[in-house]
Amino acid sequence: MADHDEQPPVGDEPPVLSVLRWDELPEGPVLVLLDQTRLPAEEAELVCPDVPTLVRAIRTLAVRGAPLLGIAGAYGVALAAVRGDDVEEAAGLLAGARPTAVNLAYGVRRALSVHRAAAQKGVDLRNAAQAALAEARALHREDAEASARMARYGLALLDELLPAGGHRLLTHCNTGALVSGGEGTAFAVALAAHREGRLSRLWVDETRPLLQGARLTAYEAARNGMPYNLLTDNAAGSLFAAGKVDAVLIGADRIAADGSVANKVGSYPLAVLAKYHHVPFIVVAPTTTVDLDTTDGAAITVEQRRGSEVTEFTFLQGGAVGEEVGGRLVAPAGTAAYNPAFDITPPELVTAIVTEEGAVSPVTGDGLAELCARSSQVTIS
Amino acid sequence: MADHDEQPPVGDEPPVLSVLRWDELPEGPVLVLLDQTRLPAEEAELVCPDVPTLVRAIRTLAVRGAPLLGIAGAYGVALAAVRGDDVEEAAGLLAGARPTAVNLAYGVRRALSVHRAAAQKGVDLRNAAQAALAEARALHREDAEASARMARYGLALLDELLPAGGHRLLTHCNTGALVSGGEGTAFAVALAAHREGRLSRLWVDETRPLLQGARLTAYEAARNGMPYNLLTDNAAGSLFAAGKVDAVLIGADRIAADGSVANKVGSYPLAVLAKYHHVPFIVVAPTTTVDLDTTDGAAITVEQRRGSEVTEFTFLQGGAVGEEVGGRLVAPAGTAAYNPAFDITPPELVTAIVTEEGAVSPVTGDGLAELCARSSQVTIS
Repeated sequence: MADHDEQPPVGDEPPVLSVLRWDELPEGPVLVLLDQTRLPAEEAELVCPDVPTLVRAIRTLAVRGAPLLGIAGAYGVALAAVRGDDVEEAAGLLAGARPTAVNLAYGVRRALSVHRAAAQKGVDLRNAAQAALAEARALHREDAEASARMARYGLALLDELLPAGGHRLLTHCNTGALVSGGEGTAFAVALAAHREGRLSRLWVDETRPLLQGARLTAYEAARNGMPYNLLTDNAAGSLFAAGKVDAVLIGADRIAADGSVANKVGSYPLAVLAKYHHVPFIVVAPTTTVDLDTTDGAAITVEQRRGSEVTEFTFLQGGAVGEEVGGRLVAPAGTAAYNPAFDITPPELVTAIVTEEGAVSPVTGDGLAELCARSSQVTIS
Repeated sequence: MADHDEQPPVGDEPPVLSVLRWDELPEGPVLVLLDQTRLPAEEAELVCPDVPTLVRAIRTLAVRGAPLLGIAGAYGVALAAVRGDDVEEAAGLLAGARPTAVNLAYGVRRALSVHRAAAQKGVDLRNAAQAALAEARALHREDAEASARMARYGLALLDELLPAGGHRLLTHCNTGALVSGGEGTAFAVALAAHREGRLSRLWVDETRPLLQGARLTAYEAARNGMPYNLLTDNAAGSLFAAGKVDAVLIGADRIAADGSVANKVGSYPLAVLAKYHHVPFIVVAPTTTVDLDTTDGAAITVEQRRGSEVTEFTFLQGGAVGEEVGGRLVAPAGTAAYNPAFDITPPELVTAIVTEEGAVSPVTGDGLAELCARSSQVTIS
């Protein structure tokens, strides 16, 4: 059975975006990916019959986004096991495909440890492979369920904050189905509002330098028939000034114990604008994003990325750290750029953090810790 | 004598950027332009021996920027007169080359009315032509002098606000020599600070969608040996948060009677960030930018520009409203964009407005009106 059947029901239209699925073909199992390097121009599937093909897909960003990479990694281990390949070697290849992607290593480890445990118990290879596959499916399902729960909690919060409906929501970067086993984080909330007839406009920041908003969020919004407009990140200010933003919805790369939120660069200016205009600024992220060992925003190291992302316009195919297909210098040769990957929004600018365990508002360290404690009962580390 | 000799002295190095000059060649006079469509890759001159060539240069944005267009228009009239061409016809062609450019029509009108007055007085054609040329030179010189005075007043204000020196200034869009008969507005202040050894960093916003910051301001900063970094407009927030911006310097497209400032989109979010971080937000613009007939910001109509500037990445050659050299879709086909040309910053967010007649701070309608009254003694309308 195709794995996408396990995703939460989302209504009849449009067809579920199948970003990643396990398929049992007559010639053997395959992992089928939506090739994100071809978006938004084309919805093309990339079929991975073995781990080396999947590793290439990860490296070339055909599949990307933290939670989705974890799921891909887990299925990759299962694929090696079902094929009878060397599972340990496959796991090493997969985890090393994007060395800084923590979720990828996590997903690989989950499937691998289940496989190892089965093998140690003397389970035959076929059943050990099925155990690894079941673990990958479980991770996939958990992520989809977390998305669905975040969407539910997020929508409830919006309805509470904005009882009049007709929400005009502003979002930044890409936080939808393309990065998730389900429908994402912040985007999933906007999508839920749309399905309930309560979204009147989704404002999509293009999200320089890599344009994930223009390329990916606009694609997801269009595909779901949502009313949306794309804008330069610059233009958000005049929307706030005109009273045309009812709430900001963003994701998070990492949340510190005090509620400071590290997210794609450009999130913090939106938080300041939202504060100045008395507009709710809502962060939607799974509890796995909360790092209780990081005390506050100052403890988060901000990665500086290469300046060519700013000084050149590169037709990046794929998402975050791309393979380039030609670049063109827009600034004078030798120009140095300041190019932080993300910025940090302090808790006093965050109206609420919505997780799969519920929302915390106002954002306090204690509130966050409580949500994380609830979730840690089911987290496998 | 080449017209650039009339520019205010700027020290020995680097050589004066000759954006536009009148040259007397053996074969006749020419207007020599820096071809801005070739920037930042190349400093190429474009020689205009006649009005049709100049009109083409204006249309293709080889020459651009409001004050500079006025100067080009005035010289164009002089060029036609000196050549013995039909001056009235030439004036019509020039003024119509960019119909919405108010300054262009203004410059044309100034040279034309001087030429007409001379002709009506029975002055011979040669002397009437010289009168038109003198008027073009006067306009050029006035603009250069206004730049120099704005730079002086702006630097004095910076020194008052930031007595410690080592200024780290953030700027947006392009406001330098490329748009002016002199060294520009906001950029001229930063350049003056640099020459006095008081600039420790110029932060250059790339200024989406048309990237005038990346293409033009970075070029001017590099050419003048200023310490600068280019950043996505998104990244300014984290600079403020880190305490790395001492003041924001921007220009203005139009200033209402109450001190509301219409400027390139992205200015308003910078003003809000500056306010939030207690950083001075300084607008530098000639008094001709102040429109006392526009009562306040709400009375300013914000032009919406075509969405393709956002949905496509176009290698625009030139500045504001370009001839395109190939575009590439970055968003899904059919994506609608919200693409305002500028935004409006209310006076309460503006620390000071610096003009060639001095600075007003705090920004009040009365203070502005007083500056304008001073300047109106010399303004020819």
